[in-house]
Amino acid sequence: MRVEEFLKEKNINIGDFIRVIKEEDGEEVIYEGYVMPPYELSPGDTLVLKLENGYNIGIALSKIRRVEVIERAKVKPEIHFEAFIEGKPHLPDVTIIGTGGTIASRIDYETGAVYPAFTAEELAKAVPEIFEIANIKPKLLFNIFSEDMKPKHWIKIAHEVAKSLNSGDSGVVVAHGTDTMGYTAAALSFMLRDLGKPVILVGAQRSSDRPSSDAAMNLICSVRMSTSDVAEVMVVMHGETGDTYCLAHRGTKVRKMHTSRRDAFRSINDVPIAKVWPNGKIEFLRDDYRRRSDSEVWVDDKLEEKVALVKVYPGISSEIIEFFIDKGYRGIVIEGTGLGHTPNDIIPSIQRATEEGIAVCMTSQCIYGRVNLNVYATGRRLLKAGVIPCEDMLPETAYVKLMWVLGHTQDLEEVRRMMLTNYAGEITPYTRFDTYLR
Amino acid sequence: MRVEEFLKEKNINIGDFIRVIKEEDGEEVIYEGYVMPPYELSPGDTLVLKLENGYNIGIALSKIRRVEVIERAKVKPEIHFEAFIEGKPHLPDVTIIGTGGTIASRIDYETGAVYPAFTAEELAKAVPEIFEIANIKPKLLFNIFSEDMKPKHWIKIAHEVAKSLNSGDSGVVVAHGTDTMGYTAAALSFMLRDLGKPVILVGAQRSSDRPSSDAAMNLICSVRMSTSDVAEVMVVMHGETGDTYCLAHRGTKVRKMHTSRRDAFRSINDVPIAKVWPNGKIEFLRDDYRRRSDSEVWVDDKLEEKVALVKVYPGISSEIIEFFIDKGYRGIVIEGTGLGHTPNDIIPSIQRATEEGIAVCMTSQCIYGRVNLNVYATGRRLLKAGVIPCEDMLPETAYVKLMWVLGHTQDLEEVRRMMLTNYAGEITPYTRFDTYLR
Repeated sequence: MRVEEFLKEKNINIGDFIRVIKEEDGEEVIYEGYVMPPYELSPGDTLVLKLENGYNIGIALSKIRRVEVIERAKVKPEIHFEAFIEGKPHLPDVTIIGTGGTIASRIDYETGAVYPAFTAEELAKAVPEIFEIANIKPKLLFNIFSEDMKPKHWIKIAHEVAKSLNSGDSGVVVAHGTDTMGYTAAALSFMLRDLGKPVILVGAQRSSDRPSSDAAMNLICSVRMSTSDVAEVMVVMHGETGDTYCLAHRGTKVRKMHTSRRDAFRSINDVPIAKVWPNGKIEFLRDDYRRRSDSEVWVDDKLEEKVALVKVYPGISSEIIEFFIDKGYRGIVIEGTGLGHTPNDIIPSIQRATEEGIAVCMTSQCIYGRVNLNVYATGRRLLKAGVIPCEDMLPETAYVKLMWVLGHTQDLEEVRRMMLTNYAGEITPYTRFDTYLR
Repeated sequence: MRVEEFLKEKNINIGDFIRVIKEEDGEEVIYEGYVMPPYELSPGDTLVLKLENGYNIGIALSKIRRVEVIERAKVKPEIHFEAFIEGKPHLPDVTIIGTGGTIASRIDYETGAVYPAFTAEELAKAVPEIFEIANIKPKLLFNIFSEDMKPKHWIKIAHEVAKSLNSGDSGVVVAHGTDTMGYTAAALSFMLRDLGKPVILVGAQRSSDRPSSDAAMNLICSVRMSTSDVAEVMVVMHGETGDTYCLAHRGTKVRKMHTSRRDAFRSINDVPIAKVWPNGKIEFLRDDYRRRSDSEVWVDDKLEEKVALVKVYPGISSEIIEFFIDKGYRGIVIEGTGLGHTPNDIIPSIQRATEEGIAVCMTSQCIYGRVNLNVYATGRRLLKAGVIPCEDMLPETAYVKLMWVLGHTQDLEEVRRMMLTNYAGEITPYTRFDTYLR
């Protein structure tokens, strides 16, 4: 039997989420996934399913015992977008800047892969709820995977955000791929000076045309947060795996901690700023956030791009440090072991780097906790070699910050002073006990 | 007043843990720490305290309002070690191999820094409880900081462990610095073949002569576990911050997740093997561990050292990949973003690497979760470039494993097969939901 006939007989459509009970070695095995159109090269008697883990499998029709439809393919409501854009005077204005990523992507039914595809307009159409919260102004800035985001993109986003905020927006939402969202959040935190309004980065762990997508709730909570009193750069993503609430994380303290879970984004060494519910309820988890004000934001976009992030490990060769020196790098952020250590045999190269005016900063690959180079002899030797200990800063945040600091000064004493100055909550003076593995 | 007189008057001794109530700008500020002897260069009217965070501070005597002794400096019981070594026939034999690290270190009261100092014998003397559990055979193999551990040290430890086990020990405990304990645990997991007995790595987050040290309980629980039924390489460290129980983690799935907390070691993407209490109670958290047997262990110590671990980040230059190619590296483990991605502009260099026969493996810097290169176009491009996706393996474990695999074959197809073969529990076929941030 051909797969087309099979689907017709069972009243199943392409895109439906179904359960297939299949015979394997005399036993029943269950697969659940989205019905894909047959590949060009797949045999005509094979049903192709896209599983929740992203893999496609082919199931021979002859082995299928039963099928059940779990959820029909979503049909998006037809909305006349222009009517919304007209604007409701009682609602605040919020610009949604599209940059690409899963929140604005779709499954390509030809290849089975996920591509960034929605324009910011299409994205807004897909989540009509946000039009009840604000006058949404969509703006597609570019459309790239977040793994391709570069410092030049951070700068473009920063200027677009500043333009929107200074033209009267209540806040700005930046739709961004999740892979490097933490890095971009840190970059905007340092570059947007005198910020008086909320800037929210949001993404999705599952693309927006899948029933299990987290895109809609994340976007709704983001727009809610963008009209709040918090004048900081934040990441707003699912707080739990269920569709309950989102967490608003400070942009310098947030990290993607899981490859695929909806609650992948976590605040590290710090508590999130707030819980946000889609209905607009906001529960603040701390009181020390920057308040909304009339101040005009400006972009301090000077970045030194010759900076490297290097994780050390047993057996690492000092030639890697030498390589960065010889290539003219101006800064190196090290992800050391434990309290911030490196093998002792690479310390001479680190000292050579600092002697040549290269800023070397220390963070920890433990991720949680704080570097302390005063406890052990190795740490003291690193201090003596001129290494700057970055307190409890995330390695990723220290990397972005060092680019920004070196954009302003290459004097090592001034670099040290700026690295240890708290510009955007990147250093927590005292670590709360209840921030570990949360 | 000189500090010596001050201490005498207050009946305080060097090494006591005290609370100092000090005046600062008209307010009372409290410091707690260990009384240090005055530095050679410190003013005679300054009391030097080592704080719990490792810092030393000097407090002018004139500013001190009150002092309270919280805990007296510990006096170690005098034990005639040789009497213990005689051996009790009803107890199992356990060798404790000393390699250095905090479990065997002390504060140097001259410089205030912590140095590795105890011999394995001194270590054993410090925790008399373990002599009630087993006939302890201490062996100081070397005495280095764990950040200086190299593949050659892993090999030496492996051979020493095998020698002890094959000479009749019930199990072996390896005292090891915590910085790179996870890497060594993974290395022993791959190198010790046909293991029939427990091999425990243990360390301490606080040095053993401090009242707050976790060394004693960790060591007691390690010796308990070394006489258990589990024939695997494990890390045994505090399960909570309190002195309640330890967790026994599988050597390939464990990571130091905090710079300083006693419960820093956590199993990633997997549940620990067991909870272990100092009194000998063991609660197994899983049933699928390797059981004790009579098999003779042997060391498969072929390691290829020309392997690099590279974390990618926005703005990383492909010249870093080119550098490893040109330097003759045989393998590169990438810590990609999200599901296992790199910027697209470095993929041509990755392809050049695989074309030149260099094994390139993908893990995720998210730490939790599993790489999946089938979901997005970037992942598919990386697969096409020949990248080996390492499932839910820790980056550190994948790095160690790739060294070991390349020690056996440099044929890329065979490397791929071996990297995806589960040798020591390094790949979890299905991730349990309750293993995230635990």
